[in-house]
Amino acid sequence: MKLNIAVLPGDGIGPEVTAQAVKVLKAIAMEFGHIFTFNKALVGAAAIEKTGSALPEETVSICKKADAILFGAIGSAKYDMDPDAEVRPEHGLLGLRKSLDLYANIRPVIAYEDLLNKSSLKIKQIRDTNILIYRELTGGLYFGEKKLTNDSASDICEYSRFEIERIAHMAFKAAQTRKGKLTLVDKANALATSRLWRKVVQEMATQYPDVKLNFLYIDNAAMELIINPRQFDVILTENMFGDILSEEASVIVGTIGLLASASINEKHAMFEPIHGAYGKFANKGVANPIASILSAAMLLDHFGLDKEAALVRKAVHKSLKLHITTPDLNMKYDNISTTKVGDFIEDF
Amino acid sequence: MKLNIAVLPGDGIGPEVTAQAVKVLKAIAMEFGHIFTFNKALVGAAAIEKTGSALPEETVSICKKADAILFGAIGSAKYDMDPDAEVRPEHGLLGLRKSLDLYANIRPVIAYEDLLNKSSLKIKQIRDTNILIYRELTGGLYFGEKKLTNDSASDICEYSRFEIERIAHMAFKAAQTRKGKLTLVDKANALATSRLWRKVVQEMATQYPDVKLNFLYIDNAAMELIINPRQFDVILTENMFGDILSEEASVIVGTIGLLASASINEKHAMFEPIHGAYGKFANKGVANPIASILSAAMLLDHFGLDKEAALVRKAVHKSLKLHITTPDLNMKYDNISTTKVGDFIEDF
Ligand SMILES: CC(C)[C@H](C(=O)O)[C@@H](O)C(=O)O
Ligand SMILES: CC(C)[C@H](C(=O)O)[C@@H](O)C(=O)O
Repeated sequence: MKLNIAVLPGDGIGPEVTAQAVKVLKAIAMEFGHIFTFNKALVGAAAIEKTGSALPEETVSICKKADAILFGAIGSAKYDMDPDAEVRPEHGLLGLRKSLDLYANIRPVIAYEDLLNKSSLKIKQIRDTNILIYRELTGGLYFGEKKLTNDSASDICEYSRFEIERIAHMAFKAAQTRKGKLTLVDKANALATSRLWRKVVQEMATQYPDVKLNFLYIDNAAMELIINPRQFDVILTENMFGDILSEEASVIVGTIGLLASASINEKHAMFEPIHGAYGKFANKGVANPIASILSAAMLLDHFGLDKEAALVRKAVHKSLKLHITTPDLNMKYDNISTTKVGDFIEDF
Repeated sequence: MKLNIAVLPGDGIGPEVTAQAVKVLKAIAMEFGHIFTFNKALVGAAAIEKTGSALPEETVSICKKADAILFGAIGSAKYDMDPDAEVRPEHGLLGLRKSLDLYANIRPVIAYEDLLNKSSLKIKQIRDTNILIYRELTGGLYFGEKKLTNDSASDICEYSRFEIERIAHMAFKAAQTRKGKLTLVDKANALATSRLWRKVVQEMATQYPDVKLNFLYIDNAAMELIINPRQFDVILTENMFGDILSEEASVIVGTIGLLASASINEKHAMFEPIHGAYGKFANKGVANPIASILSAAMLLDHFGLDKEAALVRKAVHKSLKLHITTPDLNMKYDNISTTKVGDFIEDF
């Protein structure tokens, strides 16, 4: 298979971890006789420094032409601490999601047997947890009209039936191939948009009689995710709630350095770790590349390259079992670098 | 001291737990020679059934005249599952907060030594956690203009400098009397309102040089609260983020049945458990009354009745130590009812 992959390393630890994922994809191409070509493009603070924009036109055009995008991370302390900054690294990511209409963000949360003792949660609490989060990614509060003056500010949260239906169909279908359970997380007791979500998803349920649908308020879901994570199979939710819940869910896995994601629609597909840029850990060789490597595995899934994806995951599991991991996970050896972990995994 | 206390039991387990808190307040009045009078009023689904409104005028007027309000819980499955319902129990609570301008919601999160093993989190993770959450309660997404049609919906999130400053002053001052650390939780990398929060709170920090201020994004905070809860002293945040974080924080305590709150401003004060109505557990004698009783202790604090509050808390701790608790906490005996726990605590 020929795949043209855009690579957007971005900021902080983004470039380091993305380099490992590219390395693994190259090894897969060799092993299975595929032709993967990689085109780098600028995004985030790195792009602002070079071009003045967090999302240069050229980057959008490279991404639009690509079969898939491998994304690193964006963000920088400089902008985090400057609420007045008008140009911001995050526009790179949010703008790209919007320009390509990547409305479905899929985030798997798996409690790996070899990592159970790394979690802050008790082992009996998390064993066998396997959740798939469907986060709507191009609507909601992040994308509504914004106003900011010295004395007041506003953000608008909007959703249309169409935006809800298209991702809900995906989530229902995913549930059908798994344990058949779908949980909609919303705040329908306080928000109009949440009431629309609840209404539309309730109506759609009749089309999926084999899926058991239930509902949780976001505040309650944030608690339930910790006290009883195994109750969940597929979680469907709007943009911001999905952001919060998925990062929270990383505590089940034991480190956010392992959580991968796919952001897709019918035409485009982007793959990225859910972690951010973590600027202060950049260029120290301590960043965990596995979230990026598992994002590459999701890329392989996306193109039906099942054996290839399975091989990558097997190598990742082996690295976890043998403690060939970066310091966030390692207790046995303490100086295994980002690159060394990548080397081990690409060696299958 | 004479106190005129409005009592709004509300729905589900609200009436049962509130009855225990009233009992304890009556015992305190006897013991210390205070005169507490109690006026019941309708709210929530209970009020809708009797009057058609979740917040009857009479209730608002009783609350406005009262020195303090003791609130139970609102909500009902019937409305939860009907996104089209225009009259909703939650209007009772949200409407009351708004009519009385109860802008500061204070939610303590304490890992009790006697309950460490009840938490889903590892004991070493949570021991000595003591967090005070300041949640803005009358602004943000819940209160902005709402639109809902069959095909689209919107909610507006708005904040003014004034709304941020008044609660931020309270939070800074609280930090001064504690460990001197304040964490602002926002989503300034995506929201204009969050940028205003960050800007205003940054500017105010110069007035509180003895307070160490830091910032976290809500997604990150939802993770940090679990992996390192002891890093927090006072958390300040907007309405919805506070809702999510405080319910999530209940996992540290081991049960949401223990989390109390105060909602205050310069004129009015309301005290309520952070848990909801839990209709399916109502009238079974299984509801934990301690969150309501500890809310009554916060009421006593509010009027400077320190010894009285301390006595209530001492009795609560004793009940926890001796396992005189409802099933959510009990392993030793299994049939200690809501009323029995109340009886034990009011006996000091
Ligand atoms: C960087 C930020 C805007 C982004 C988001 O909130 O969507 C990130 O947290 C994520 O989850 O991908
Ligand atoms: C009932 C609901 C509207 C309310 C809220 O979200 O404010 C509740 O969850 C709370 O935290 O007091």
